[in-house]
Amino acid sequence: MKAVVKTRRAKGMEFVERAAPQLGPRDVLIRVRYSSICGTDVHIFDWTRWARKRFTPPRILGHEFVGIVTEIGEEVTLVEVGDRVSAESHISCGYCYQCRNGYSEVCRNTKLLGVDHDGSFAGFLALPEHVLWKNDPNIPDEWATLQEPFGNAIDTVLAENISAKTILILGAGPIGLFATGIARACGASLVIVSDPNNYRLAIARKMGAHLTLNPKKKDIVQSVLKITENNGVDVVLEFSGNNQALNQGLNVITPGGRISILGIYEKRVTLDLNSDVIFKKIRMYGITGRKVFSTWYKTSHFLSSGLVDLNPIITHKFALKDCERGMQLMKGGKCGKVILTS
Amino acid sequence: MKAVVKTRRAKGMEFVERAAPQLGPRDVLIRVRYSSICGTDVHIFDWTRWARKRFTPPRILGHEFVGIVTEIGEEVTLVEVGDRVSAESHISCGYCYQCRNGYSEVCRNTKLLGVDHDGSFAGFLALPEHVLWKNDPNIPDEWATLQEPFGNAIDTVLAENISAKTILILGAGPIGLFATGIARACGASLVIVSDPNNYRLAIARKMGAHLTLNPKKKDIVQSVLKITENNGVDVVLEFSGNNQALNQGLNVITPGGRISILGIYEKRVTLDLNSDVIFKKIRMYGITGRKVFSTWYKTSHFLSSGLVDLNPIITHKFALKDCERGMQLMKGGKCGKVILTS
Amino acid sequence: MKAVVKTRRAKGMEFVERAAPQLGPRDVLIRVRYSSICGTDVHIFDWTRWARKRFTPPRILGHEFVGIVTEIGEEVTLVEVGDRVSAESHISCGYCYQCRNGYSEVCRNTKLLGVDHDGSFAGFLALPEHVLWKNDPNIPDEWATLQEPFGNAIDTVLAENISAKTILILGAGPIGLFATGIARACGASLVIVSDPNNYRLAIARKMGAHLTLNPKKKDIVQSVLKITENNGVDVVLEFSGNNQALNQGLNVITPGGRISILGIYEKRVTLDLNSDVIFKKIRMYGITGRKVFSTWYKTSHFLSSGLVDLNPIITHKFALKDCERGMQLMKGGKCGKVILTS
Amino acid sequence: MKAVVKTRRAKGMEFVERAAPQLGPRDVLIRVRYSSICGTDVHIFDWTRWARKRFTPPRILGHEFVGIVTEIGEEVTLVEVGDRVSAESHISCGYCYQCRNGYSEVCRNTKLLGVDHDGSFAGFLALPEHVLWKNDPNIPDEWATLQEPFGNAIDTVLAENISAKTILILGAGPIGLFATGIARACGASLVIVSDPNNYRLAIARKMGAHLTLNPKKKDIVQSVLKITENNGVDVVLEFSGNNQALNQGLNVITPGGRISILGIYEKRVTLDLNSDVIFKKIRMYGITGRKVFSTWYKTSHFLSSGLVDLNPIITHKFALKDCERGMQLMKGGKCGKVILTS
Repeated sequence: MKAVVKTRRAKGMEFVERAAPQLGPRDVLIRVRYSSICGTDVHIFDWTRWARKRFTPPRILGHEFVGIVTEIGEEVTLVEVGDRVSAESHISCGYCYQCRNGYSEVCRNTKLLGVDHDGSFAGFLALPEHVLWKNDPNIPDEWATLQEPFGNAIDTVLAENISAKTILILGAGPIGLFATGIARACGASLVIVSDPNNYRLAIARKMGAHLTLNPKKKDIVQSVLKITENNGVDVVLEFSGNNQALNQGLNVITPGGRISILGIYEKRVTLDLNSDVIFKKIRMYGITGRKVFSTWYKTSHFLSSGLVDLNPIITHKFALKDCERGMQLMKGGKCGKVILTS
Repeated sequence: MKAVVKTRRAKGMEFVERAAPQLGPRDVLIRVRYSSICGTDVHIFDWTRWARKRFTPPRILGHEFVGIVTEIGEEVTLVEVGDRVSAESHISCGYCYQCRNGYSEVCRNTKLLGVDHDGSFAGFLALPEHVLWKNDPNIPDEWATLQEPFGNAIDTVLAENISAKTILILGAGPIGLFATGIARACGASLVIVSDPNNYRLAIARKMGAHLTLNPKKKDIVQSVLKITENNGVDVVLEFSGNNQALNQGLNVITPGGRISILGIYEKRVTLDLNSDVIFKKIRMYGITGRKVFSTWYKTSHFLSSGLVDLNPIITHKFALKDCERGMQLMKGGKCGKVILTS
Repeated sequence: MKAVVKTRRAKGMEFVERAAPQLGPRDVLIRVRYSSICGTDVHIFDWTRWARKRFTPPRILGHEFVGIVTEIGEEVTLVEVGDRVSAESHISCGYCYQCRNGYSEVCRNTKLLGVDHDGSFAGFLALPEHVLWKNDPNIPDEWATLQEPFGNAIDTVLAENISAKTILILGAGPIGLFATGIARACGASLVIVSDPNNYRLAIARKMGAHLTLNPKKKDIVQSVLKITENNGVDVVLEFSGNNQALNQGLNVITPGGRISILGIYEKRVTLDLNSDVIFKKIRMYGITGRKVFSTWYKTSHFLSSGLVDLNPIITHKFALKDCERGMQLMKGGKCGKVILTS
Repeated sequence: MKAVVKTRRAKGMEFVERAAPQLGPRDVLIRVRYSSICGTDVHIFDWTRWARKRFTPPRILGHEFVGIVTEIGEEVTLVEVGDRVSAESHISCGYCYQCRNGYSEVCRNTKLLGVDHDGSFAGFLALPEHVLWKNDPNIPDEWATLQEPFGNAIDTVLAENISAKTILILGAGPIGLFATGIARACGASLVIVSDPNNYRLAIARKMGAHLTLNPKKKDIVQSVLKITENNGVDVVLEFSGNNQALNQGLNVITPGGRISILGIYEKRVTLDLNSDVIFKKIRMYGITGRKVFSTWYKTSHFLSSGLVDLNPIITHKFALKDCERGMQLMKGGKCGKVILTS
């Protein structure tokens, strides 16, 4: 089969022939229909500091996908040949302190699909059945591949109830855009989105943002205080990974409010913890991964019922061999989500 | 001023002249614009068992209203003359164990507006400032009077997060109808409403119910199991006050789910606690009143932002003097909410 | 090996020779050291209505135990030969809606150890590794076998925080006695225990109850109101399975309080839902099983750190062949927990 | 009356004659029995940067106290002459967004006792009745004055349930010492306390710490990982206000754990947000003040029931005129809590 493989410890990747994966007794073979590109894939392509520390070539990239089961190991019971599946990308161990306490998303022994285990940018991939998710028939393939990152957005938005609350979303990359749609679907009464990229702010408006702000042109703190009549917002959702944006967010949370943080920062962050967190009694949630599989159920319900429309976010579709074009596009920022056809 | 007064310990009420109320130093005088009729008012009119035990004439009825402040006591700081206000109808003491633990909605010394304190079915009413709520200018008068019962619905729906969940609403009286709109606004993925009254089921559909069921015509348990593929619903909201409906609801909650109960029952209820609650590990919430004032903020945000549209529920408007016509209408069930013009 | 087996659909059981169990690739063979008798075992012995409906002979009884791993299937990774283990008795499927939402304790396809799967009243038992729990070395064998029912008590007590709260425990069987110790260890400020059995009330006092009440001699409602200065208790924990006790408990919960219910009732229960639950805004939790394995971690910490002392509850120890004597003793009520040596 | 007054915008304070306070209709006059000195008082004495920005002389200092009601305003209903009271030191407005949402501890218009309103380092003080707390008769005066800061410790410890969890407490000042006692009373299974002051670590051991660590002598991270078998702790409670300690704490929280932060920092803090919060999915709670009055009820129950013993923390008692000696002692660190007799 053909696959997008990171072959060497250097910038770049290759589209090459690889043998189809072997199955163990609890494994499942899946013919990939669509994959989608995540920022993590771009980091690996670019061979950034994080990638150099975390990634060992050779490895097939990709961890967001939808496909069809074509073969199952002899002990598999969850799925059958012909089932249309996606998968949780964190392959957890099941037995560490975190897994056994209901926190498998921070499993101590996690293997990441497309990083520690051959990924979905290929004709086929093999996975242990326990990470598989059977897709709702009402969710089209192009949306099904997006369920994994959509789940990140759910856990960020719904770390606490959001209904009838005012929200500031920092960062309108794909996950911030998912979050915009989710916040609206869940009854947030005011959704403000901040991002320096006007292309993405236009998508945010399509996803239901009441107000979009470009920090290059507007003072975020002043704008938020004005629209909230100096009350600030109840909730901040931080997807930007930008220390300055984080501080703006903390600055405008109303006392007693909360912030969920999914963005990853280039270096250590500096905070005014006294004024912005302690004296205001803020609840701050670090977010990573998804609850397995309660978040997947929510994702499935949001998408199969039409509560959130993903079409505005899916801006480009390429053949798998053109994966690199998608990555370049993502680096330029003139896109929402880029989908690859296997 | 003219007022609707329960004057005697017998069925009925009178529309009579009464002196305008006197103000203490922390009280506020309000010229009433609209009131709305609650089932409680009908109980008092009908002089039911509950009313005979709880109510002492003479008393002006009514506790849902919107009006304009016309005079304030000398120590009042919250409102000014000209402010448009509604009010929490539970006049709590502020100092009992419940009030001081954040449960003022179950204050041990509560005085109920229109029961223990002269109500709003009049030209004017006087209230201590601490129960007043300043209305958002984006909420029209006809909606503002409904905020009090709307808050009951919020606390029933949002006792836990409802987003992406499947819901069965039992009872499509006004509060069940509010709940239907709230559940949709907060991202419930499936909202089923059951009621024997087709007039009200029609309103439920306007409020966004995905499916309405008439228990006279359909087996509720079978219908719910069918549409949920035998999974049952995540959440049941019980507004009917009917023991059989309650049991149907408990029967179809999926294991691990929850039920919120606002309905009031004619007599003691009988439950299959083993099968329906314990072995399924159900969380059951008794609901009364509203969180003061966190629920009012949510109400205000839902209504001022347009997240919930109350117009389908407001079916009739009468002059105050025709209050009894409204009550007769409510007893017949061919109405949503009935509003009175003061 | 010798085992206690329910061989026929009638009252009774036999102590007979049975072949040691076979292992699948993910199974583990355990040499049992101690088992303990649960009320469920007595129901099966007595062939009660529940047992007749739920149980199919032949089957080895017993689901609370401690033992040593003597053999492991080829795919097992969690344990090694020589490990000292106990086990979660609910053998969940892992893939139903409940399991995948973090509610495996109410798995739709649960197999119960000692009911659907041969149990621990034997020399050896075999279990899939995913239900095994490696015991903390600081917990003695006699306590380790009690971890399974101790977990029931934890989930009942800690359904919400209990610190600095006043508690009424209804029923001083073994789980009520565990709950007494847990409530004290977690900082309940007043723990009242009610039971008609004075033998067990004496143990409750050893476990730290501040006050014990015998409902044959005292009016429970009046006694509780008196000691709480008419405030009632914040929390009721219902283990008795007695409708009258349940109503007493609901009657004395302070408005805004909660009740957790683990007791199983002989028939449908009757409640004054209006006065006792709705108007007081009570939270009612059905409890069954244990959170797998977060509750086991708590159990392990309570027992290994000495926070709860189980010795007052362990009143009798018999050889496995004398299992029936233990059951007769339990039916008489003159015991705490009965332990069997394999 | 004599009072400790900050008279000038400079280091120091004076013990001088002042007129007794006047009462409004809702105010209460209290004859002070004991006050206790808080770090805030020392900041005002020392005229630190915070004090220069926040404090305007002249003002009587002190906000932790116990006393007897000697006179009440005409509208007062909560207390009577002769009642023994303490008070919530945050005099909230009751009407801002925070107050009306159940967050009066972060009221936008709070007046602080001893900062914005004359305090308790005097013969008498006057307070509005709504901040008063009637003391349980089982709590001795020397403990009653400590309820205010004890409540800070409760809210830090109990931001989430702590039972059967492992805890690291950073900073063994009075509030850290209270927290040590509370964590033990609530069933924490391992309580580690870190502080560079051996005098205070000795008190921590008396309060029940299982392990005390001096960061001048031990590597905190290594020590905690060792005793927790590399799992880290479930909970960190940060009272030190030291950025390095904060980072040590974040470093050793197990993935999925939480931190509560009450300490105040000299300047902006720097955090490794990616590794220490986001990838570990940590919940971080800023803590200030106390829940009014639900935390006071907990305090009262902990102290009146003997669950926490404050005697090891009360190390010194002075006459009010010797207040400055107490402050000097606190700056030296060779004390627990210092109490003043009025």
